[in-house]
Amino acid sequence: MGWCAGNFFGRQKNTNIRVSLPAVCFVWQIAMIILFGVFIRYNEESDVRKWIEFKHSHNITSDIENDFYFRYPSFQDVHVMIFVGFGFLMTFLKRYSFSGVGFNFLIAAFGLQWALLMQGWFHSLDPNTGKIYIGVENLINADFCVAGSLIAYGALLGKVSPVQLMVVTLFGVTLFAVEEYIILDLLHCRDAGGSMVIHAFGGYYGLAISWVLYRPNLHQSKRLNGSVYHSDVFAMIGTLFLWMFWPSFNSAITAHGDGQHRAVINTYLALASSVLTAVAISSMSQKRGKLDMVHIQNATLAGGVAMGTAAEFMITPYGSLIVGFCCGIISTFGYVFVTPFLEKYFKIQDTCGIHNLHAVPGMLGGFVGAIVAAAASVEVYGREGLIETFAFEGDFATRSVLTQGGYQAAGTCVAITFGLVGGALVGEFVKCFVPEDEETIPPVLEYNNHMIHKHQDISESNFSVEQS
Amino acid sequence: MGWCAGNFFGRQKNTNIRVSLPAVCFVWQIAMIILFGVFIRYNEESDVRKWIEFKHSHNITSDIENDFYFRYPSFQDVHVMIFVGFGFLMTFLKRYSFSGVGFNFLIAAFGLQWALLMQGWFHSLDPNTGKIYIGVENLINADFCVAGSLIAYGALLGKVSPVQLMVVTLFGVTLFAVEEYIILDLLHCRDAGGSMVIHAFGGYYGLAISWVLYRPNLHQSKRLNGSVYHSDVFAMIGTLFLWMFWPSFNSAITAHGDGQHRAVINTYLALASSVLTAVAISSMSQKRGKLDMVHIQNATLAGGVAMGTAAEFMITPYGSLIVGFCCGIISTFGYVFVTPFLEKYFKIQDTCGIHNLHAVPGMLGGFVGAIVAAAASVEVYGREGLIETFAFEGDFATRSVLTQGGYQAAGTCVAITFGLVGGALVGEFVKCFVPEDEETIPPVLEYNNHMIHKHQDISESNFSVEQS
Amino acid sequence: MGWCAGNFFGRQKNTNIRVSLPAVCFVWQIAMIILFGVFIRYNEESDVRKWIEFKHSHNITSDIENDFYFRYPSFQDVHVMIFVGFGFLMTFLKRYSFSGVGFNFLIAAFGLQWALLMQGWFHSLDPNTGKIYIGVENLINADFCVAGSLIAYGALLGKVSPVQLMVVTLFGVTLFAVEEYIILDLLHCRDAGGSMVIHAFGGYYGLAISWVLYRPNLHQSKRLNGSVYHSDVFAMIGTLFLWMFWPSFNSAITAHGDGQHRAVINTYLALASSVLTAVAISSMSQKRGKLDMVHIQNATLAGGVAMGTAAEFMITPYGSLIVGFCCGIISTFGYVFVTPFLEKYFKIQDTCGIHNLHAVPGMLGGFVGAIVAAAASVEVYGREGLIETFAFEGDFATRSVLTQGGYQAAGTCVAITFGLVGGALVGEFVKCFVPEDEETIPPVLEYNNHMIHKHQDISESNFSVEQS
Repeated sequence: MGWCAGNFFGRQKNTNIRVSLPAVCFVWQIAMIILFGVFIRYNEESDVRKWIEFKHSHNITSDIENDFYFRYPSFQDVHVMIFVGFGFLMTFLKRYSFSGVGFNFLIAAFGLQWALLMQGWFHSLDPNTGKIYIGVENLINADFCVAGSLIAYGALLGKVSPVQLMVVTLFGVTLFAVEEYIILDLLHCRDAGGSMVIHAFGGYYGLAISWVLYRPNLHQSKRLNGSVYHSDVFAMIGTLFLWMFWPSFNSAITAHGDGQHRAVINTYLALASSVLTAVAISSMSQKRGKLDMVHIQNATLAGGVAMGTAAEFMITPYGSLIVGFCCGIISTFGYVFVTPFLEKYFKIQDTCGIHNLHAVPGMLGGFVGAIVAAAASVEVYGREGLIETFAFEGDFATRSVLTQGGYQAAGTCVAITFGLVGGALVGEFVKCFVPEDEETIPPVLEYNNHMIHKHQDISESNFSVEQS
Repeated sequence: MGWCAGNFFGRQKNTNIRVSLPAVCFVWQIAMIILFGVFIRYNEESDVRKWIEFKHSHNITSDIENDFYFRYPSFQDVHVMIFVGFGFLMTFLKRYSFSGVGFNFLIAAFGLQWALLMQGWFHSLDPNTGKIYIGVENLINADFCVAGSLIAYGALLGKVSPVQLMVVTLFGVTLFAVEEYIILDLLHCRDAGGSMVIHAFGGYYGLAISWVLYRPNLHQSKRLNGSVYHSDVFAMIGTLFLWMFWPSFNSAITAHGDGQHRAVINTYLALASSVLTAVAISSMSQKRGKLDMVHIQNATLAGGVAMGTAAEFMITPYGSLIVGFCCGIISTFGYVFVTPFLEKYFKIQDTCGIHNLHAVPGMLGGFVGAIVAAAASVEVYGREGLIETFAFEGDFATRSVLTQGGYQAAGTCVAITFGLVGGALVGEFVKCFVPEDEETIPPVLEYNNHMIHKHQDISESNFSVEQS
Repeated sequence: MGWCAGNFFGRQKNTNIRVSLPAVCFVWQIAMIILFGVFIRYNEESDVRKWIEFKHSHNITSDIENDFYFRYPSFQDVHVMIFVGFGFLMTFLKRYSFSGVGFNFLIAAFGLQWALLMQGWFHSLDPNTGKIYIGVENLINADFCVAGSLIAYGALLGKVSPVQLMVVTLFGVTLFAVEEYIILDLLHCRDAGGSMVIHAFGGYYGLAISWVLYRPNLHQSKRLNGSVYHSDVFAMIGTLFLWMFWPSFNSAITAHGDGQHRAVINTYLALASSVLTAVAISSMSQKRGKLDMVHIQNATLAGGVAMGTAAEFMITPYGSLIVGFCCGIISTFGYVFVTPFLEKYFKIQDTCGIHNLHAVPGMLGGFVGAIVAAAASVEVYGREGLIETFAFEGDFATRSVLTQGGYQAAGTCVAITFGLVGGALVGEFVKCFVPEDEETIPPVLEYNNHMIHKHQDISESNFSVEQS
């Protein structure tokens, strides 16, 4: 902590949330306006002049060929996952429902603007004009990019202030754009649903931050960490909207036609399969066969995470079921054994269990994708289909499927490394914004109480609510 | 009950939910993987090789012609209805909110895999290859098929264990596929929104099971059967998502173009109409003109159920309003008079009132469809339109609209018969899994209390919730 | 009040809600059936015969060209906004959650039928046949039209009976259709997302009614006007579904292709921007930097309202961010300063703060549209694009963009005038249905208590709920 020069003003900031939060929001939003003014323009499918020219030059007779009609329904589903799905999944904490969904809202709206710029600079900057041209696919990618930081938020829920969250998001989006550029462009991996770039990265990013921000006294406060009945029903809204719309998540930016179609079928099947095994392990793991709400809310989604890479490949329907089967088991076991283990021995507090829902299934999804890619054959895909599915074009026209499999596996490792190293660095930086008087903090429960009250000050109790 | 040989192990099962539930889940999921491996493949619109060939052979230039883009938005709406709509509609019970939505989730994920196989064997098995080729339309049909069992769950809510529910679903899906084959293929009826095959069948199936499982002491426990304020607001989430997306339900698998377009308009109008008459009757039926929450949550949907068959026909906009008008009245009257009557004299306990929301409006919808089909004319449909709408092709090329009307009516009767007979048989079988010590059960309230607590053991209380 | 001849039976009505509510519903629904029978038919894209002929005559080879596939996903999103978005946004009142969402449901279902007729008579009546031909675009417009009245409901929440609400809706829809005809047809303004015709009109209509119905004792009852924790989480469901689907709202009826595409991008950006400034001002305005739930629930949406007119224009991405930036600030300031001011000095009680969410941002949106239209150039739009975007065809072929800007501004004034004058008249009329014994009403709190109880009589308490 010695290098943390910003400590003094950091402490001020924390106590002066009335200054720091508005300041960050205003400065940020004004910066965004300027940068958008310099860089961002409509692309040829959303600009009235260019679209008319595009139709003429490409001999298109119908507006239905606009990419908008291929992507928009999926985009809206992804949008619902980001704001309602992630948001309501975080409502389960007893005194933190509103803050969970509210801060999720804030950092998503904050992050997606930065994501449009960062991803634009890396992927769609036109070298001639110096502009980034955006359309609906960029909006989807911005939502995806924000998802990485929202996953990390799941490990930090109830432990950080909104300003800290915004810093985590700012760096999260930046790191995301870089690792995405390395994985998708340099290594030329395929990862339409983001098992690697979104889930493995986001999961390990959040875990590393949580590890740096570890507070020894926090873990004993299970009582305050608990949920209430209605909070848990609210969380089911989040779970279900994530579960239902995951096929859209994995198919949103895959190839038109069969690509989107197949990604939906595969994800749908993997998700159904992981519900059954999550229920089975949950029931086995408890005395008297009870089901644990946490497992139902989370592990049922593991199949979707793990299909993020392979969904667009010809993994076959039963292959999808197998992936969901295994991930439902692994994820639920994670909640039963690994999360307590990580907290006890590795000093990692993981409020929402993102290790089991995102980090591990994402990593597995990356390797599943590598295997399925390596096993691809002309017989199954057809020559044209192989080129289309793996984009064996340009510099990569001669790449074999085996090589592709190797690169997919390498991409998974890159994502994890970025998450762990980036998260550790960002965690150290964010620590500066935390008051140093931890030693003076009284016994555990009160500390935690204090923690929660501090948050309540900026959230619940000051949302001018009368608790009935 | 004499023939119920499974009684002994059945009783064991019930007490050992920790063994039986995981066992059923695992065995089932492994069986699914094997059967999917043997039978299920991508169809020509979701397989990369076949889609490229299909485009060449059919001279298709744009991927937008893939059935995916015609059906996917409707599919996602139907998916939301199945998991959020049906799920949250069942959250109204005071101590059963989470179980209502959680078990709905479990059995839907369980049933849809079996539905893909059963419907595939009956409808899309390729005799040459012995494979079932699936695409987005199959996913919609699987969701539809599961809906039949979820409707039946509405009559059993709070009375059966999850393992019993899975048995009910297993047989429900099987029976559904058979009756659907008879009605749609052999009788060549049209039933895109499933008034007959989904609602009439599902409704009577659930009622018959509930009749067999009747417990004399249960009906006096209204107090525990009650709802709390927030549970009822949660239930409104279910109602509204069903109501809003019902146009997608009825149009999801109708003919491309005008067929889907018309089905949406008709359903939209019928639903709006039934809201007004449901409110009117609800207000009339209560002292001081109060509205009954149960009516608002359920009877407002009757118009959508009743339009399941006729929505794709040229029923005219005012025809749709009339159907909604009548069904809103009939359904609300059902809640006021028929449900108590059925419980008192016919020993049928119907927790969610599926008799009034699904069974009767479904039956009426079948007959409305018969009448509208019989009244079809070349003048209104055009010759080509008549063939397209009623699929008067192949063996059925010479069928008249009058004959079609007769078959539609016959189909409705088939659906009801399957529901009643199948439900009675399945009910008897499921009974084996219930402990036989009913005679020893103490006074009603405690029994029911016990019932609910038993469920809580596998649901609420063991979702490790702290009741505030 | 002297002219209020209907006073006597008005009072009767109020006490006899058991008669008046069913009577209104039945009479209305029967009238709708008759009028639909006389006037409403399927249009050429939803009628089986006409669609086949249309395809032949227009040389269309694929059903995907049916307008249904351009509009349906947006339609369903708008539908969700009307029923879940507006409905759940009104659940925040402590004892009024269910009534908020339930009455919203009733008046929306009631209003949309009348909207189809009114808008049909003004916009799509075929002079040869005397029929109105409807398709999915008409359904979207009916939902839009109802939105105007639902906005007005936001100012009246908790103060009027359901029958009064239906009267407000009946006249609201009628006025809407007239002002829409003047603005869109006579003045030839563009207003796809309805900044002017929906939000400015609806907002001022509700405020004018609320002003007429002012009750001096009501404003002191903040305590009963309060919210509870879970009610506020429910309200977040409304907020988020409005926020997420607002891009669909503003793009639902814009031009195919680039028009819909661009409207989505602009609205998405404006909304993200207004989240940040709403949070900033909310935090600044409270002691200790607390956030106010009301601001998060409402002011975050102001950017979408303000983009209603300009979203389809080439406002540029940074232009959208600027609009969202300003409106987030203005709207939050409105909640902090203007709403209390209006109540204190202008005697306007505005339960949901529609002045800040709809009236002012809608008005600003109208003027933003005027400026952007006036600044349009051939350079940016292309000649063909300019004609397409502003529909400079027929009588308006020679209109310049400057003139267009002037007309847009004039249209905004027309909408506000219609709202204020229409609302004042309708308020006076609705007053007749209120009991006159205001003078005899005891001290404030009890009066309000009485108000709420009166409502409870027709809503909560009589939804046969057991309050836990």
